Amino acid sequence: MLLNGTQALNTPFRLQPLQVEALTMLRRGTQVSRTDLANATGYSRSTITAVTNELIELGIIEETGDGESSGGRRPRVLRFRPDFGYIVGIDVGATGFDLAVADFTGAILDRATCAIDVREGPEPVLALIRNKLLSKLTAGGLSQDKVYAIGIGVPGPVDFAAGMLIAPPIMPGGWDGYPIRKYFNIPFPNAVVIVDNDVNVMALGELRGGAGIHHRHFIFVKVGTGIGAGIVCNGVIHRGVDGCAGDIGHICVDQDGPVCHCGNVGCLEAIAAGPAIAARGLDAAHTNRSAVLARYTAAQDGRLTAIDIGRAAAEGDAAANEIIQDSGRTIGEVLATLVNFFNPSVILIGGGVSAIGHQFLAAIRRGILHRSLPLATRHLRIDISPMGVNAGIVGALALAMEHVFAVEDT
Amino acid sequence: MLLNGTQALNTPFRLQPLQVEALTMLRRGTQVSRTDLANATGYSRSTITAVTNELIELGIIEETGDGESSGGRRPRVLRFRPDFGYIVGIDVGATGFDLAVADFTGAILDRATCAIDVREGPEPVLALIRNKLLSKLTAGGLSQDKVYAIGIGVPGPVDFAAGMLIAPPIMPGGWDGYPIRKYFNIPFPNAVVIVDNDVNVMALGELRGGAGIHHRHFIFVKVGTGIGAGIVCNGVIHRGVDGCAGDIGHICVDQDGPVCHCGNVGCLEAIAAGPAIAARGLDAAHTNRSAVLARYTAAQDGRLTAIDIGRAAAEGDAAANEIIQDSGRTIGEVLATLVNFFNPSVILIGGGVSAIGHQFLAAIRRGILHRSLPLATRHLRIDISPMGVNAGIVGALALAMEHVFAVEDT
Repeated sequence: MLLNGTQALNTPFRLQPLQVEALTMLRRGTQVSRTDLANATGYSRSTITAVTNELIELGIIEETGDGESSGGRRPRVLRFRPDFGYIVGIDVGATGFDLAVADFTGAILDRATCAIDVREGPEPVLALIRNKLLSKLTAGGLSQDKVYAIGIGVPGPVDFAAGMLIAPPIMPGGWDGYPIRKYFNIPFPNAVVIVDNDVNVMALGELRGGAGIHHRHFIFVKVGTGIGAGIVCNGVIHRGVDGCAGDIGHICVDQDGPVCHCGNVGCLEAIAAGPAIAARGLDAAHTNRSAVLARYTAAQDGRLTAIDIGRAAAEGDAAANEIIQDSGRTIGEVLATLVNFFNPSVILIGGGVSAIGHQFLAAIRRGILHRSLPLATRHLRIDISPMGVNAGIVGALALAMEHVFAVEDT
Repeated sequence: MLLNGTQALNTPFRLQPLQVEALTMLRRGTQVSRTDLANATGYSRSTITAVTNELIELGIIEETGDGESSGGRRPRVLRFRPDFGYIVGIDVGATGFDLAVADFTGAILDRATCAIDVREGPEPVLALIRNKLLSKLTAGGLSQDKVYAIGIGVPGPVDFAAGMLIAPPIMPGGWDGYPIRKYFNIPFPNAVVIVDNDVNVMALGELRGGAGIHHRHFIFVKVGTGIGAGIVCNGVIHRGVDGCAGDIGHICVDQDGPVCHCGNVGCLEAIAAGPAIAARGLDAAHTNRSAVLARYTAAQDGRLTAIDIGRAAAEGDAAANEIIQDSGRTIGEVLATLVNFFNPSVILIGGGVSAIGHQFLAAIRRGILHRSLPLATRHLRIDISPMGVNAGIVGALALAMEHVFAVEDT
């Protein structure tokens, strides 16, 4: 039940349903006793003891005396064995990747960041990632054969079941349909390799370790070069039927708007994403509507980024402020529609443009509240992602961890 | 796990997790053997035998010899005992209700339809429903104490956990906050009473017995006096954090549009629902743009319904056709946004206005396909709800059935 749809993967460990349930609890909580497991699953203490003893014999978990005492001697609690095995999270962006190796207790053992250019194509980029990972494992004395899962976030549409990108707009040069899973299974034959869209991975990071941790239904919105959403429904990532749920960047917001790189007109990201903000800023600089932006443009070889528009707005520049207000309001109006439809408890705004300044968040909030139903916004929180750049790597590790154990076929 | 959030209900039967899982399988399939249960749950045949024997002893299920043979003697299959108990489904509309009594095998034992006016307030209306139900039970010789669940769909926003309506626009006169659950628990003390929004109930009907039966993610759209959606995500109804998910009628589609009864301007239902279609038809009749509609208006004491506009369009009336095209296209454009966001495999259109004619469905389809991403519409089916008026009652029975058995607290 927990791992629907992953039966085709080479899941490293196939176990009984109750064993999988116990391990799921263990990886989500640091202090889990047999009594906790019995209470949570509804099974008897003796059944739980039998199941956990098997997991101890298999070398997956161990017993420690570190539980919190409620008066008497400290209860024995269960945890993953730190030397049981390792998981890897990889967060691939257009210009760099972030990589982490962790054990099953959740401790990060090593981490690396490296510049890349995804336009060079899959083989040189993946070789760089693989070699960096192998060198980190060697340096830490960690066995390659004990890497049981690799979770990878990539900036494009993903066929989740197949573990590959599908026609990614910002990743030309052979990424379309490239077998990323197979590439990593050669050096890591015991690992299940999971590839997912970067925004889904960031949403998962917030769900497991960030602002989404106590929320069953939320939306993570990445505003950067494009605009996309990661949807958490009932505590799991909602990918939709074709794996493209959350692809909100091409929702039409203005029938008479600018032409988008997708060919349609008036798409949300053609009006409100980073490049649109920068282009409007350049226009303001060139048409003498903003002295501040004209100064920035002159100092930066005629270039501006969305962050520059944010800096100008913070300096009190009216034109820059208007651009940010427009972008935020437009994003907010689309999110108002999604709030009425989905009724989430939290909307988290992440991605590079989310750092543009507080006026941006304020405009998004106003846009949402202006057109959402009062009932749907009664408990709604709208915030900048507190995990920031870490959401991707935390999510990639969680993605890996969630696919190590599955129920055996009978 | 199956019944999260229902722990506070007076669920009639609290059982072990595997017993609940077995009963869930039994109520979804007519032919379930112990081997089927073992295969589906991952538990051993002997564990399954122990669990099902207990359920037989409790008088909940029985064994029959009706399984399909694969060569040898016909395998014994399990099913609910027809005399174990009864469930009730009630589909309440603004002007009438539909009621059905069924046993746990899914057989409908009796059914009734009755005219009401919900504006009379909860007590006279609920008394009518209760009395009709009691007389049906008496006539069938069915014990009131064996009614274990009552599922009720109502046309307004529902606080699902509390089992009551919250500020329903078309149900004034005391419905707001009226304790419907408690009202039915007096004559039916052994029943769990579940109240839900009518569109959610219709979506559940399609999920369990209609066009949604093989789909994990779909959207049911009711177009009538208002416009609302029932969302199925991962095989369950998605109600959102405040229970108002799917309330798409007040999404803004035209900043310069007409004022809606909610007070905002340009809401979807102010432009595209039944009353808006009828009002535009009347306008066409009064301004001599439609001879057909003028004739209908004269013959009907100056009144028109959305269905009349559909009839006129079918007669070839250009003005009527344009109204239907506009309404369908506007609904389709909102659904395009939701398709990009949610990536469902099916969209079902139900409610009174869905019977308006094939041009309406065609316009909705065009509106969706015009602005959805190609990847998100690759497998998308868009159809008129095949269950029609039965979706509500089938859904209300399913809603009841799904809350009879829950995992016991430990």
